[in-house]
Amino acid sequence: MSNSTIGIGLLGMGVVGTEVARNLVLKAGRLAQQAGVTLELKGVVVRDVSRIRDSAVPARLITADARAVVDDPGVQVVVELMGGLRPAYDYIRMALSQGKHVVTANKEALATYGSELVGLAEERQVSLLYEASAGGGIPIIGPLHKDLLANETSSIHAIINGTTNYILTRMSQEGTSFQEALVQAQELGYAEADPTNDIEGTDAAYKLAILSSLAFHTPVTGGDVYREGISRLAAVDFRYAGELGYAIKLLAIARREDSALSLRVHPCLVPQEHLLAKVDGVFNAIEVEGDLVGRVVFHGRGAGPKPTASAVLGDILEAARSIAEGRKPPRRAALDNGLRMLPIHDLVTQYYFRVTVADRAGVLAKIATVLGDLNISIASVIQKASDEASQTAELVIMTHPAREAHVREAVGRMRGLDEMVEVSNVLRVEGRV
Amino acid sequence: MSNSTIGIGLLGMGVVGTEVARNLVLKAGRLAQQAGVTLELKGVVVRDVSRIRDSAVPARLITADARAVVDDPGVQVVVELMGGLRPAYDYIRMALSQGKHVVTANKEALATYGSELVGLAEERQVSLLYEASAGGGIPIIGPLHKDLLANETSSIHAIINGTTNYILTRMSQEGTSFQEALVQAQELGYAEADPTNDIEGTDAAYKLAILSSLAFHTPVTGGDVYREGISRLAAVDFRYAGELGYAIKLLAIARREDSALSLRVHPCLVPQEHLLAKVDGVFNAIEVEGDLVGRVVFHGRGAGPKPTASAVLGDILEAARSIAEGRKPPRRAALDNGLRMLPIHDLVTQYYFRVTVADRAGVLAKIATVLGDLNISIASVIQKASDEASQTAELVIMTHPAREAHVREAVGRMRGLDEMVEVSNVLRVEGRV
Repeated sequence: MSNSTIGIGLLGMGVVGTEVARNLVLKAGRLAQQAGVTLELKGVVVRDVSRIRDSAVPARLITADARAVVDDPGVQVVVELMGGLRPAYDYIRMALSQGKHVVTANKEALATYGSELVGLAEERQVSLLYEASAGGGIPIIGPLHKDLLANETSSIHAIINGTTNYILTRMSQEGTSFQEALVQAQELGYAEADPTNDIEGTDAAYKLAILSSLAFHTPVTGGDVYREGISRLAAVDFRYAGELGYAIKLLAIARREDSALSLRVHPCLVPQEHLLAKVDGVFNAIEVEGDLVGRVVFHGRGAGPKPTASAVLGDILEAARSIAEGRKPPRRAALDNGLRMLPIHDLVTQYYFRVTVADRAGVLAKIATVLGDLNISIASVIQKASDEASQTAELVIMTHPAREAHVREAVGRMRGLDEMVEVSNVLRVEGRV
Repeated sequence: MSNSTIGIGLLGMGVVGTEVARNLVLKAGRLAQQAGVTLELKGVVVRDVSRIRDSAVPARLITADARAVVDDPGVQVVVELMGGLRPAYDYIRMALSQGKHVVTANKEALATYGSELVGLAEERQVSLLYEASAGGGIPIIGPLHKDLLANETSSIHAIINGTTNYILTRMSQEGTSFQEALVQAQELGYAEADPTNDIEGTDAAYKLAILSSLAFHTPVTGGDVYREGISRLAAVDFRYAGELGYAIKLLAIARREDSALSLRVHPCLVPQEHLLAKVDGVFNAIEVEGDLVGRVVFHGRGAGPKPTASAVLGDILEAARSIAEGRKPPRRAALDNGLRMLPIHDLVTQYYFRVTVADRAGVLAKIATVLGDLNISIASVIQKASDEASQTAELVIMTHPAREAHVREAVGRMRGLDEMVEVSNVLRVEGRV
């Protein structure tokens, strides 16, 4: 079976959709050589057809009728770039059910219904390709699917949200507050007007779920990922962390602990010599550790129209080639590790405490007693600043590995101490060098 | 068409072959789940059957008769890990001709006969997989084949030889000489007794040829790559480079210049802030720049039994899955950019000169005249050290972009100056930050 033309239906014409459409039109000749078959854009679905579109994309292709494009018998590959769970998920499902190949960048749909959608694609013997859903243009889904498949993955440590990494980089390099850095990011178009999804770690949690499902051979959804955002970080945390030899990054972490999987997105202290500590601005990096390969890091632009279009077009070429060459898409590996999700309370890692206390004798002994009673061993205590007027002092305490449940209990007990003004921040420390 | 068992024939049982064989035997159950089919090691070819082998690999499988293993009708996938051009190339050819799938880590065979072998595999509709041939365990061949395919690649900058990177790291961090660092590398098993292939850049040139063929859609052989080794680097070069804000790395560089391709392996000054400047020890990193994706970097262990086995086993799984699922291997993209190879004389880049001159007035004017006459513009000159006894001084000259042919002419003319004691080193400067 072979086709001379593959029809493409594009759902969504935001910045990424526009870039994909432009490439399909303007680079048609080159893409045809790559695919071994002509790619023809058959329809582009937008919410509001009256808005001015890119001049490279013929106006006659633009429609608000998604069903018509998905159902068009001339469309063999549906490219979903609407984002959001619904109606995007419904159209993906519809397309797959009709035996059409689907390319999508939709992290929310995959992190929520990925297992079902992959199963449906397999049942219909069509491709469901989603390289752009995590890490933007960085090839990571493909390598996890194929190149790294022989490994038992032990961990993923990733910076997979460009917005928050930009904000943290500004805070670190310029000593600005979170609010100032957020406003700068919004002015530059790196953060949305409502930045909640990014700064609360939701976007990163979706992406981590997608990567972890592949890497650990266990179905993971966004809801399985514990998350804390970056809004309670203060400029002073960056300064103290820096003095101790650490950067602060929002990491997405998946770590296998025997038959359990610890999944979390939260700000971390990362040793400055660690490669992830050096990933600045809107760049993303994903470190995967496997029993054979050791640690391998993928670094690049995790967002933006062109990098994301690179991944989407790569997937479109793959789908088109498999149709043209009459190749069936690969089946899912039958391996299911069946890992359970480790509750955050069972996490064991190192912690950084920043606390403000009344500046008087004996306070440290009381704190040490609280921690010691809970088996939390102190690695170092540094008095960072004392305030003459208020008679208070700021302490930074670094611990040896301790259990999260104990750390939370310790925070409660510390808050109950007479001398405790404030437990200002508690951060986890991650990343072996 | 489906098989319940896939027979594997393994040619070569060095450190990588042993690791692959061990995994095939010891992880058979897990690999079967990954592949959806049982992988059975049918024969292992060694040069000397009398040598003691790994206890995990049944002695009855070991033979010196490569032909028998390649010809065995029960062997569907031939895994070539002998290395070297011949007889490895002959066996790869034989296996493909018989319609068998081939997995190989053989950079020399691919950099020499890659185009022919890929054509033969395509003709016979079998897979020729070689992820392990460049970058060891780092997924790079797969991403170039698929994920990055929509890009017009503009450049590759890579550290793809662990031996030389280890030596340069020692020289940089400890101020040792090349010879001392080489001996250390040999003692640790990072360099071979005859290190020529590594230190002269031959190994890196093979790997660059493989990557460039894929990235630029133009057949490239190892012979197309200009190469200079690292043996003439002195400890003092690292010190001066460091003072100027540069590291020194052996880079493999492919850069597209319109319809030509500049291909070279040589030591370079790389800005310290560049990601490649931070790649130390035996690690490898490959930076690919494309029109859509921008710059993406792949970092990990480029050699060693386990990382290389990770790539080989990933390819074995892929071959086995395609056989089990009755999938044809993907065809080669029909795109041929037909780029010509740019001679090294036409290279335009920045240069670092270290020269020793008689310490007297007017010498700099003479050097500046030589350079100016050849349109080589000086960015900075620093007198690094003068020697009272010999009345000589060492100068470091950094240029603006200049043509290689002019630089070579300038070196000749400088050598002719009365005041010139020695043109001690000339190095290229690479890597935009």
